[in-house]
Amino acid sequence: MQILGLSGSLRKHSFHAGILRAAKELLPKDIDFYTFDLGKLPLFNQDLEVNMPREVQEFKSAARKADAILFASPEYNHSISGVLKNAIDWASRPPNDNVFDGKVAAIASASTGAFGGIRAQYHLRQVFVYLDIHAVNRPQIAIPFADQKFDKEGNLIDEKAREGLKELLNALIALTSKLKK
Amino acid sequence: MQILGLSGSLRKHSFHAGILRAAKELLPKDIDFYTFDLGKLPLFNQDLEVNMPREVQEFKSAARKADAILFASPEYNHSISGVLKNAIDWASRPPNDNVFDGKVAAIASASTGAFGGIRAQYHLRQVFVYLDIHAVNRPQIAIPFADQKFDKEGNLIDEKAREGLKELLNALIALTSKLKK
Amino acid sequence: MQILGLSGSLRKHSFHAGILRAAKELLPKDIDFYTFDLGKLPLFNQDLEVNMPREVQEFKSAARKADAILFASPEYNHSISGVLKNAIDWASRPPNDNVFDGKVAAIASASTGAFGGIRAQYHLRQVFVYLDIHAVNRPQIAIPFADQKFDKEGNLIDEKAREGLKELLNALIALTSKLKK
Amino acid sequence: MQILGLSGSLRKHSFHAGILRAAKELLPKDIDFYTFDLGKLPLFNQDLEVNMPREVQEFKSAARKADAILFASPEYNHSISGVLKNAIDWASRPPNDNVFDGKVAAIASASTGAFGGIRAQYHLRQVFVYLDIHAVNRPQIAIPFADQKFDKEGNLIDEKAREGLKELLNALIALTSKLKK
Repeated sequence: MQILGLSGSLRKHSFHAGILRAAKELLPKDIDFYTFDLGKLPLFNQDLEVNMPREVQEFKSAARKADAILFASPEYNHSISGVLKNAIDWASRPPNDNVFDGKVAAIASASTGAFGGIRAQYHLRQVFVYLDIHAVNRPQIAIPFADQKFDKEGNLIDEKAREGLKELLNALIALTSKLKK
Repeated sequence: MQILGLSGSLRKHSFHAGILRAAKELLPKDIDFYTFDLGKLPLFNQDLEVNMPREVQEFKSAARKADAILFASPEYNHSISGVLKNAIDWASRPPNDNVFDGKVAAIASASTGAFGGIRAQYHLRQVFVYLDIHAVNRPQIAIPFADQKFDKEGNLIDEKAREGLKELLNALIALTSKLKK
Repeated sequence: MQILGLSGSLRKHSFHAGILRAAKELLPKDIDFYTFDLGKLPLFNQDLEVNMPREVQEFKSAARKADAILFASPEYNHSISGVLKNAIDWASRPPNDNVFDGKVAAIASASTGAFGGIRAQYHLRQVFVYLDIHAVNRPQIAIPFADQKFDKEGNLIDEKAREGLKELLNALIALTSKLKK
Repeated sequence: MQILGLSGSLRKHSFHAGILRAAKELLPKDIDFYTFDLGKLPLFNQDLEVNMPREVQEFKSAARKADAILFASPEYNHSISGVLKNAIDWASRPPNDNVFDGKVAAIASASTGAFGGIRAQYHLRQVFVYLDIHAVNRPQIAIPFADQKFDKEGNLIDEKAREGLKELLNALIALTSKLKK
């Protein structure tokens, strides 16, 4: 099973890059987990599709080979980040159409505030309907007060949060196994 | 009164750029209507804030001087475009904080499909809560079957749609006058 | 396979009751399709749970035995109806907890306006996350201009809309088969 | 100025009834604050509109005379309660149409969980667009871990939460003054 991890935040010590690193550690060894840096993509412009930028092609290939996606999605302004949405906008277009079609996904978010990014998760789920992604419903991993759960390099060090993430990954694997035929 | 028009689409013959051109024509002559090209902005990265890119500074200045904003927002994947969200993510951060704070806004969208982008509008409205933007509720301008309402250069030629847009702009001016003190 | 059909509208010639009648006709004969009248339920009040009203018990039993649910959901005020939400509020509580847990669902809506109830569908999908319902993503059945697609008794007579509904039911059966193990 | 307080929960010791009692105490004496018990309303059925039930007429009158509304809205299943939505469904219909039209509103919620009902607030805000209600954006009052903030009778005893509520009420009064002309 191949799982692609995507972080919607580009800063160096991002909590969400930290979530992806923790996921790699927590996943069973036989799962191929890999990531793609969304900061490499240009802003989406439909006019560029006739001559698709190389980075976009690479992103689409990375997404197409995955069985499942882990979205580590920050909440900016009560929604998902423009960085993440921009990547999704590229990935669901001609010439190779929607590379997420029929895949399985899980969402994890963190915020320094009290709500852990939960509002952004529901916007992402509405996007999933268009993409025909089936997402894990439970557990909902929205880590509040992230300053206390991650270290200064953005590593997830809170044991309870790591357990929650592991539970989410198990649910992702289970749903992917059921739906993948 | 100064109104900033923002298009969430970067393609040359974009319907949403066309909505902004139509708005300029339809607005009373004493309104200063101007636009900013969101394609000039880099992808948001919090680490860049210590040395804010010049284009971001220009965007923030353009937004700060506006009394009201017209968001011409395409719907991609059932939400607002990454391009528009990326611009908003830059505009609501230090060092100059949220440049939209307390402003008034209206939303117009168009799509080739049957729903005219209406789903994206509600995501944008949730973002407005964070930004403390007050938005016009009515009329809701979501133009379906855009291929028949715009010409090949993206000019809004449908008379009924233009009337709807004019009504929206009037409502935007009225609400801005009430709230601006 | 047992499928429960729920209509969020109580009026006699409701489009949504009509959607359920059409579903019964369109489903394969070996599917047991049945409905429950949500108008029999009292308004939800947590204090009544210690002595659960008989109608609520009946509703919970009807929902518990289903493998899948077809939600025929009108859009009132840009969201699902209070009638439907009230039923869901009863169904996800002690003493028998969430009777929808792990089930599969599909949504169909209709409206006299241009958007066919599409806004309500996304509110229902957010509710599904709590209920741990997995919902069909495609096709999205939101029937606009319902006055022209249903007859005066609320029967769905538009052939194209009936085909869309049939496609939705097939997708519901397929997803239920995959997830039910 | 007249403010109507509505609670979306019917249980006797409801946190949300407690929010309304606290609001009455915290509001300036010259504000006329009153409530209406939504548990008196029947389930919405459009067929009953030709002979509108007396309780519905009373509710509509109560809403019509208000300048502003305080919605004390619990979150059930990640959305607003069926009880509250049912009341809104009655209030935005013929023969007296939408009694909320053009009014100003504020939302306060509480939950025993960590998110304080914040997800329901955004569903309510989407409903406001249809109703043409202008809502206060800040502060957002979503009280988490309500068991520790309310006493056993549902009285709001947490001082910080009461201050937040007072701030919300001040913002409601200010916005109502601006918009009411």
